[in-house]
Amino acid sequence: MSDTFSPRTLGILGGGQLAQMLALAAIPLGVRVVALEPDPQAGARLCAEHLCVPYTDPAGLARLAKCDAVTLEFENVPLEALDFLEGRVPVRPGRGLLAHSKHRAREKEGLRAAGAGTADFAVIEAESDLAGALAQLGGQGILKTSELGYDGKGQRRVQSDAELRAAWDDLGRVPCVLEGLVPFTREVSLGVARTASGNLAFGPLVENVHRDGILRTSVYTGGDQRAEAQAREIARAVAEAWGLEGLMTLEFFELPGGELLVNEVAPRVHNSGHLTQDGGGVSQFAAQVRAVLGLPLQGWKPPLPTAMVNVVGVDGLDGQALEPDWGAIDALPGTQIHLYHKAHRQGRKLGHVNLTAPDAETLRSRLAELERLIP
Amino acid sequence: MSDTFSPRTLGILGGGQLAQMLALAAIPLGVRVVALEPDPQAGARLCAEHLCVPYTDPAGLARLAKCDAVTLEFENVPLEALDFLEGRVPVRPGRGLLAHSKHRAREKEGLRAAGAGTADFAVIEAESDLAGALAQLGGQGILKTSELGYDGKGQRRVQSDAELRAAWDDLGRVPCVLEGLVPFTREVSLGVARTASGNLAFGPLVENVHRDGILRTSVYTGGDQRAEAQAREIARAVAEAWGLEGLMTLEFFELPGGELLVNEVAPRVHNSGHLTQDGGGVSQFAAQVRAVLGLPLQGWKPPLPTAMVNVVGVDGLDGQALEPDWGAIDALPGTQIHLYHKAHRQGRKLGHVNLTAPDAETLRSRLAELERLIP
Repeated sequence: MSDTFSPRTLGILGGGQLAQMLALAAIPLGVRVVALEPDPQAGARLCAEHLCVPYTDPAGLARLAKCDAVTLEFENVPLEALDFLEGRVPVRPGRGLLAHSKHRAREKEGLRAAGAGTADFAVIEAESDLAGALAQLGGQGILKTSELGYDGKGQRRVQSDAELRAAWDDLGRVPCVLEGLVPFTREVSLGVARTASGNLAFGPLVENVHRDGILRTSVYTGGDQRAEAQAREIARAVAEAWGLEGLMTLEFFELPGGELLVNEVAPRVHNSGHLTQDGGGVSQFAAQVRAVLGLPLQGWKPPLPTAMVNVVGVDGLDGQALEPDWGAIDALPGTQIHLYHKAHRQGRKLGHVNLTAPDAETLRSRLAELERLIP
Repeated sequence: MSDTFSPRTLGILGGGQLAQMLALAAIPLGVRVVALEPDPQAGARLCAEHLCVPYTDPAGLARLAKCDAVTLEFENVPLEALDFLEGRVPVRPGRGLLAHSKHRAREKEGLRAAGAGTADFAVIEAESDLAGALAQLGGQGILKTSELGYDGKGQRRVQSDAELRAAWDDLGRVPCVLEGLVPFTREVSLGVARTASGNLAFGPLVENVHRDGILRTSVYTGGDQRAEAQAREIARAVAEAWGLEGLMTLEFFELPGGELLVNEVAPRVHNSGHLTQDGGGVSQFAAQVRAVLGLPLQGWKPPLPTAMVNVVGVDGLDGQALEPDWGAIDALPGTQIHLYHKAHRQGRKLGHVNLTAPDAETLRSRLAELERLIP
């Protein structure tokens, strides 16, 4: 094999479903994956060399350091792990980008510095930051921890100074960001990949619907040209300002006039991009593998309209797991099932179902059917 | 998870690229794969539990017997392995079907018994079978070993009784079939899957071009309705007559008038079905996993026109490996690379490139470009 596709090894910090799907996409590219993940039952064990040790284990990190490059499936990587790896192996994205994306306040400041719009916000890191913060944002907002929040966790909606103080106490008085409410009409997202040499490629503009703070559906119809062009320009500006090496996903609020504000940035593939696995094109997972290893990049907009519905653990009133109707899902044209090999737990992402259709209208109507089959 | 998608384990006899791609398709279905394969460097080791022992190893077979079902990636399974497994675990396809498909003479007889057309043939198993055999087939034919032939190996073209005798000597006087020449206009193939309960599903009708006895390109445009309907009827008849459990692929010769004769049958996914990985639909690999485990079947015709070009090891005049132009392949819209993690060797299948396009005309023109990039 020539240099482009000579055998390579990719290290991943983390071994959950994102690592599993990265590995499934890496293998056909001639890439072997090594996943450092303490959970012995993590999904990536099935298709990667699994280093079942803590994220800061020196022997495990030394094995990762022998890979051609290291990437990550979650942003809250222990700094000690980065300290060990940096200088020994390219870590993509690296500390510079993670400093933004793993910390809500730095992220918002970094987005503004790159020229991207965000919700108004106030940084709450000390008692003295509380006074006047809410008034400055119009009297209501959402208090969010700056670190470690995901899937709606670590957030409190507040409408008075008393509620703000109570919420901050409740969140443990850790550094937070108080965000003003955004009167958005919908949420969309877009992925961008960039190699160390500066080549860029983009994913599709995807429309997302959340339920209980967790992504429920993502839809790509191909009909969002204007919003997509705007999202790409923002993504390009942020990727270049932050020196992205790898792939990141921007979540946006769309305002009534069409303007996009960045809600948050994930330094990796994203749940809203799972639909790219089955639309007939390149998947976001292959795109991240390529970007991290410096392989040629292709855009990853699906040729076909595609959608995704998450399968999240739901307990019924009797405490038993409510099951998707797998038989009916299989019988619906254009569905593909993706399971993560995880045990059921209320609120846990267990898998997703992708749906492709020949046109946007058929996609929307089958998606409505599919949603009825998944609790 | 409900019964349909409760965790399952699939055993595979063999661990090469077909097993690798079966495993990559199985994991998203919640299925773990165990591959019994003596080659320590076999591709399936990357995404399956690899039992690196001989095919007849009792401990290895005992591990396979604990799976929910066992399938195979090659037809020449040692009978001892089947003897051990049968009765302990469902083996799909099993001995009944393999008795046909692994033996060219039995295969042709079984096809005729199922009502399928084949080339005229004479069975050559003893010295006395030689006399008059060629004359009966019009004076020329191809002598093929009944067992163990693949990719054009174990075949000799003959045009006289003297050549026939010499060829049979050359092939070691093993049981052979002498096939009459078929004036075919093209070669096509089609996969059929059948569960133990009798449910059937079909793949696309694919047009194949061989080079030096090895598949070079496969093309699916969706425009072959009449040939596809005929191929399905033949596949259905053979699947039912032979009691298929699992997936098999029929290769056909198309005669000038459009009639299809069955050339041979592979009791598994087939190189000509690799294009189903990237056309936006179900892949042949997912179909085999589902059929073998008795999961609901979906047809696996791609929604988009797709093609495939094999990457086969080619030595240049200087003895160095000739490389595909990977950069140009990546730059061609709609390509996806699939590598098997195998070392270069002249004539060895090392990978394939799939190509999707919005319409048949674009597909054909990009395929011509793609072929120029792959030696």
